[in-house]
Amino acid sequence: METKIKIGLFGFGCVGGGLYEVLNQSKLLNAEIVKICVKSKDKERSIDASHFTFEKDDLLNNSEINTIVELIDDADAAYEIVTTAFRKGKNVVSANKKLIALHLEELIQLSRKHQVSFLYEASTCASIPVIRNLEEYYNNDSLSKIEGICNGTTNYILTQTHAFGKSYEEVLKEAQDLGFAETDPTMDVDGFDSKFKLDILIAHTFGKIVEVGEILNIGIRNIKEEDVNFGREKGLKIKLISRAEKIGDKVICFVAPHFVPEDHFAYNVENEYNCVAIQALFSDKQFFLGKGAGSYPTASAVLSDISALQFDYNYEYKKFKTGGDLEYSNEFYAKVYVGSPYKLTDEIEFVNIEESYSGLEYHYKIGWVKFSSLASVDFNKREDLFISFFSEDVKFEKTKDESRVEALEAAL
Amino acid sequence: METKIKIGLFGFGCVGGGLYEVLNQSKLLNAEIVKICVKSKDKERSIDASHFTFEKDDLLNNSEINTIVELIDDADAAYEIVTTAFRKGKNVVSANKKLIALHLEELIQLSRKHQVSFLYEASTCASIPVIRNLEEYYNNDSLSKIEGICNGTTNYILTQTHAFGKSYEEVLKEAQDLGFAETDPTMDVDGFDSKFKLDILIAHTFGKIVEVGEILNIGIRNIKEEDVNFGREKGLKIKLISRAEKIGDKVICFVAPHFVPEDHFAYNVENEYNCVAIQALFSDKQFFLGKGAGSYPTASAVLSDISALQFDYNYEYKKFKTGGDLEYSNEFYAKVYVGSPYKLTDEIEFVNIEESYSGLEYHYKIGWVKFSSLASVDFNKREDLFISFFSEDVKFEKTKDESRVEALEAAL
Repeated sequence: METKIKIGLFGFGCVGGGLYEVLNQSKLLNAEIVKICVKSKDKERSIDASHFTFEKDDLLNNSEINTIVELIDDADAAYEIVTTAFRKGKNVVSANKKLIALHLEELIQLSRKHQVSFLYEASTCASIPVIRNLEEYYNNDSLSKIEGICNGTTNYILTQTHAFGKSYEEVLKEAQDLGFAETDPTMDVDGFDSKFKLDILIAHTFGKIVEVGEILNIGIRNIKEEDVNFGREKGLKIKLISRAEKIGDKVICFVAPHFVPEDHFAYNVENEYNCVAIQALFSDKQFFLGKGAGSYPTASAVLSDISALQFDYNYEYKKFKTGGDLEYSNEFYAKVYVGSPYKLTDEIEFVNIEESYSGLEYHYKIGWVKFSSLASVDFNKREDLFISFFSEDVKFEKTKDESRVEALEAAL
Repeated sequence: METKIKIGLFGFGCVGGGLYEVLNQSKLLNAEIVKICVKSKDKERSIDASHFTFEKDDLLNNSEINTIVELIDDADAAYEIVTTAFRKGKNVVSANKKLIALHLEELIQLSRKHQVSFLYEASTCASIPVIRNLEEYYNNDSLSKIEGICNGTTNYILTQTHAFGKSYEEVLKEAQDLGFAETDPTMDVDGFDSKFKLDILIAHTFGKIVEVGEILNIGIRNIKEEDVNFGREKGLKIKLISRAEKIGDKVICFVAPHFVPEDHFAYNVENEYNCVAIQALFSDKQFFLGKGAGSYPTASAVLSDISALQFDYNYEYKKFKTGGDLEYSNEFYAKVYVGSPYKLTDEIEFVNIEESYSGLEYHYKIGWVKFSSLASVDFNKREDLFISFFSEDVKFEKTKDESRVEALEAAL
């Protein structure tokens, strides 16, 4: 029944190196790494040079290898590797959230065509087994909402700014020195990484593939001490939340900073921890927490995928049978805070304003906006603006549900 | 590939009735309930009498039925049903923690002998997919610890006593009136239910079956207002924790009240919610939260098992390959609080005392005890004594690790 897993490994960085160790220490798995393909010819490596090659075809054309484990950063190179592996009849385990979010539909179809397995648990929230649970455990339960903290780097930064009153710039520098933020932190701090993961989660939660480009991602790059202080004074922490919700036949989804109160699921999720909260019709509220980054936590997710391949496991995408009619929508209202060192103009189109503050050095407004109107401002590039949502879910309104919109407008 | 699941259902109470509804509403599952066996002939039921029988053989001898779902309270009757079903070549899904904890080894062997599946996710923490994850996801990761809140009734009582200063008796009465505590609450409040679940978790975490009778269970029946107040003043909540830990080749495990601080995983788990925290070598700390009781949350776990049977899923018990050499041990030290309306005698053998308080109406001592010495006092039957552990894990000491014991003793 068990198939011996013969691995061709792409990448020997933090996760690849971790996988090598984890695989050697785990006695229960019938798997071995045959060869490792790496890019840099000069880098010092912890194991003997005989394990390595610099030619991807040494792995892809090796008929002994039945499984490609792809752990590289470059999504374009990964696309070539993964699609070629499918065509060669090899199973693929990947941790590449960007690759998967950008090409999920095509990759599913191609892997099915070639009757190989394509698993990617490590791509989303690292050690948290969220994809497997969505596929296997919540596959008959109607899910209405999924949200979480899906990026460890930004959560570390937000935790430190809140707890120790340090500036964003100071903590980012620390994180870079410690090696868990990139030199160019754009993917993390502007919410792209969180968005790729959210997109993957949406597919497995609702059975719907939303174009990555449709999803608004607002990050934490422009957070100021005043924004953190505003939250702290009110018992709120700022967390970068990836969220998606099904309302009728619509899916709404976005990544943005949120002020969360003490009783919110994300409030105590600190530093490099990630979390996912699911709302299910029958199972009700479910919550998962685990490390969202790091060599071993990520490698352990890769290992679990490799282990599942022993039994020819593949995702079933069962929810696609019912999720096909869902449509992405940005037509709803949300309550936001916008802070700035400058007096706020009418650029942000509030439909009502609940609070407005102007001081000598800082200004903010809190109120309701039409979500679709936010796309006209490029928040990630606007050093003068920090926007944060609030976590109260009930305030979402479906524009097409005319009666509710009228009720909202009447209340304004 | 998919097998049509034809179900014979035993029990139509809270969970059985929930399953019936959930199964009818879930469009994605190729399963139907053929017949339902119930005990009481007089009870009014929500669906037509033609669905029911009072003869268990009508289900067990029905060759159309390939799956028995056992959702009754009586562990002895369940034993007969489940073992007969195995012999008849039928798969079994059960939520009966007592049955499973008492007979796990035999039930595994018998189900293997007859080549049928035996699944019981709903037996442990209801909606939390903990067994499936231990089996499928953490099957190659070395686990060192599992602990959690495994009983919704006691957690509800503890939540209410802490939050509203109500007495144990008052909240128990409320819970009974609301229908989620039994008329005889012994199984819940004395920690038996939590112990059965812990025993099942130990098997899937460490690959070791510990005799249920070995595991000490101390419940919350004798909690006094003064105990709750002691905690509240120090920022601690009392939670009934099921815990098991692997130290070298020993497994230590017990169920008991614990004072937990604000940063403890269980602190914010309130009312009927359950939680499980796992410590893994590679995945590191993992945490799951979900409803531990209730019709739909429990039924959804049963449904997930039924769904898995479509693909002939069965637990693999892979950790039994490595867990066989583990031994149960009660030879360690723990820090406890013991409160009483009476002045404490030397009955509890403290090896040292850190705090001692005597007031006009209440007395307590805090200090270290040899865990094995606690068995000489029947805490559940001692109205005058309330014992609670502390959550600091590092204080556990392995008696056989002589150097550490010596160090501890030297420090006393």
